[in-house]
Amino acid sequence: MACRCDLLIHSATQLVTCASPGGPKRGPAMREVGVTENGALAIADGLIVAVGASDDVRAAFDAPRQINAGGKVVCPGFVDPHTHLVYAGDRAGEWEMKLRGTPYLDILAAGGGILSTMRATRQATLDWLVEQARERLEVMFRNGVTTCEIKTGYGLSVEAELKMLQAIERLACTHPCAVTTTLLAAHAVPPEFESDPDGYVDLVVEEIIPQAATWFAHDARAARVAPMACDVFCEANAFTVEQSRRVLMAGRRHGLAPKIHADQFSSLGGVAMALELGAISCDHLDVTTAEDRARLAQSSAIATVLPAVNFHLGSTQFADARALIDAGCALALSTDHNPGSAPCFSLMLVMGLACRYQKLTPAEALNACTINAAHALGVGDVLGSLEAGKQADVLVVDVPDYRHLAYQFGVNPVARVIKHGVEYAYR
Amino acid sequence: MACRCDLLIHSATQLVTCASPGGPKRGPAMREVGVTENGALAIADGLIVAVGASDDVRAAFDAPRQINAGGKVVCPGFVDPHTHLVYAGDRAGEWEMKLRGTPYLDILAAGGGILSTMRATRQATLDWLVEQARERLEVMFRNGVTTCEIKTGYGLSVEAELKMLQAIERLACTHPCAVTTTLLAAHAVPPEFESDPDGYVDLVVEEIIPQAATWFAHDARAARVAPMACDVFCEANAFTVEQSRRVLMAGRRHGLAPKIHADQFSSLGGVAMALELGAISCDHLDVTTAEDRARLAQSSAIATVLPAVNFHLGSTQFADARALIDAGCALALSTDHNPGSAPCFSLMLVMGLACRYQKLTPAEALNACTINAAHALGVGDVLGSLEAGKQADVLVVDVPDYRHLAYQFGVNPVARVIKHGVEYAYR
Repeated sequence: MACRCDLLIHSATQLVTCASPGGPKRGPAMREVGVTENGALAIADGLIVAVGASDDVRAAFDAPRQINAGGKVVCPGFVDPHTHLVYAGDRAGEWEMKLRGTPYLDILAAGGGILSTMRATRQATLDWLVEQARERLEVMFRNGVTTCEIKTGYGLSVEAELKMLQAIERLACTHPCAVTTTLLAAHAVPPEFESDPDGYVDLVVEEIIPQAATWFAHDARAARVAPMACDVFCEANAFTVEQSRRVLMAGRRHGLAPKIHADQFSSLGGVAMALELGAISCDHLDVTTAEDRARLAQSSAIATVLPAVNFHLGSTQFADARALIDAGCALALSTDHNPGSAPCFSLMLVMGLACRYQKLTPAEALNACTINAAHALGVGDVLGSLEAGKQADVLVVDVPDYRHLAYQFGVNPVARVIKHGVEYAYR
Repeated sequence: MACRCDLLIHSATQLVTCASPGGPKRGPAMREVGVTENGALAIADGLIVAVGASDDVRAAFDAPRQINAGGKVVCPGFVDPHTHLVYAGDRAGEWEMKLRGTPYLDILAAGGGILSTMRATRQATLDWLVEQARERLEVMFRNGVTTCEIKTGYGLSVEAELKMLQAIERLACTHPCAVTTTLLAAHAVPPEFESDPDGYVDLVVEEIIPQAATWFAHDARAARVAPMACDVFCEANAFTVEQSRRVLMAGRRHGLAPKIHADQFSSLGGVAMALELGAISCDHLDVTTAEDRARLAQSSAIATVLPAVNFHLGSTQFADARALIDAGCALALSTDHNPGSAPCFSLMLVMGLACRYQKLTPAEALNACTINAAHALGVGDVLGSLEAGKQADVLVVDVPDYRHLAYQFGVNPVARVIKHGVEYAYR
């Protein structure tokens, strides 16, 4: 006699689990995604209750709603662990100037750069920020992202950073995509502190972090899969290693998990510092040394690389993701969606970039966008793979083989998104 | 008193015409796309009857169906002038092997390469070929392609090339996208002629071309915007310049317009030969010399580059499209959709590649995917731009600025496709 469940997905040409019960995937395990041909999945109360061969799952479970995934791939919902999805303003014109070789100072003089996004974001109403970001989140969701990290970092003042937190909160409350929040008050030095960057770090440490943490603990209402994280941009024109350490330690005192933007342009030592503080992820890693790769491999932190940034800027240089994996790091991929360096909405295109320009296999790329990305947000035990007991975050994708997620490019083959057991159909 | 029309699109944040009444765009004209802010377009009987400022067009025309394009860009439907959309088989596994560095001979030994697609295509039924290709054409159409060239070239026998022509014909009859047909019987030397390539050229010249031309003239039923073209792959491991000349001349004798795959890997002289024969386009041009760029600039042929191929193979080398434009060539872009070297469905991503890796401006890229691509198919007087009298092939795109077509990437912002005056909504 079959058990009753809510939703049964069966007959998948490939059911791909990305299962990794012991933590994130590393080394040779990254090459395995766990493929069951003619696979099935049973869902009850928003959770996965069974995964396996269609015959077995259908013998054990019955459901009022069934999806025949014949000819299609069923895989975990994607997790995007690094985005700047909330912002105002438009930087397409600046991008055109950059591609034409306009010097950076001229772009700044024309009102471009990160501070142009800061100005537009400070001026924007909360409603406008939410409305714009919701459209972007909806595009991400349709393209398979069922859990998305969103950072602050275009406010750069107490008031404007809290406004960004509220915008992220509203998205988390009103969109089916799970949203995790990262405070990135130390994204850039705002113009008010141009001649006193340490003064801005004081503000971040003494006011923004405490107020943000208090707000998150007491006023945030969205159902959360993860606590708030604290991030910092450790780079030559942003924050030094010592300033970054102050920021992350202040975050830690308030219960915020450390993350870091490190080694995008210069290797300052941010990775080692962040690992000392127990960072859950180190992101960018374009110029990371072999020594720091070894440190990352020995840590529990996820190494997150962001090839859409290099692509957007027309670069032929990409982070050495192959070396990170070969060193034993647990690698994740992300869009880094932002208006300046990566207006990218598709983790499938990011997988395609990683396979083509970073020497990943399609399996490694898929693990990097699911289970490992979930661990980069501290939610790898709850979601990110198709395993009994986890959140039912599932994609039905109109491709015959999981390798097509990276192989075909430029369009969206996702036919159905199932988030926490609820089904959204797009094709 | 306003005239009655069928459909009025108004209030477009940008209406972009790509108008070029005197033929394809060249040189500085390629940098202009013709932007009207708050623009409108009136359509009657499938044709454009007016283009201009919203106030003017709305004062002159009324329509039972109106589209408010506020916040959006209205532009010509894209034209994809070089695709191999009809095929059977799957080469994602071969792609993975290639990226892992597997030698080409090992891939062939494992059953890969173009001949694997030939084998699968020969074995496939006509119905299966049509069914598979229709799904691909539908994806292209949703992503804005309203006119698409499709080549034969995976049959490589009289019977199988005619089967491919019939498949293309069925697509042309049953899908709203306009389809133009190109006979590419000389795509590769089939195994039966491995030791006698000239014997295969004889077959192409004496049997395949005449039979195909007769079939097209007498049995093809689809409404056509263009006559059939004849293409050849002039390359070291395919056909020599002299063999290619024989093929194109035979095509010409049967009324087929010459096109050529030239200079993808080696510059053999195919461009000069094809231009002598009045080619309407020369395609690939990865290693074209300055001398041949000058020849192209002085001809009426369109120079079509295909950066998705370089991207798919993980290359950092791309055709020097900037030099082609600067030399005075009329440049077009295409996906080159095919399973071996470009499983790409999105001309917007191709525009993005051209801006990032070939130094085009977003305006040049858009002209290359509309008016100039239409001229590459010989239909530039009928469609490819928003001008009164042309076919009403129009996109309403959910972006605030035409530069976003190339700027944001990986997803599809097309909200509505209007083909020959008929509206298809996707968002």
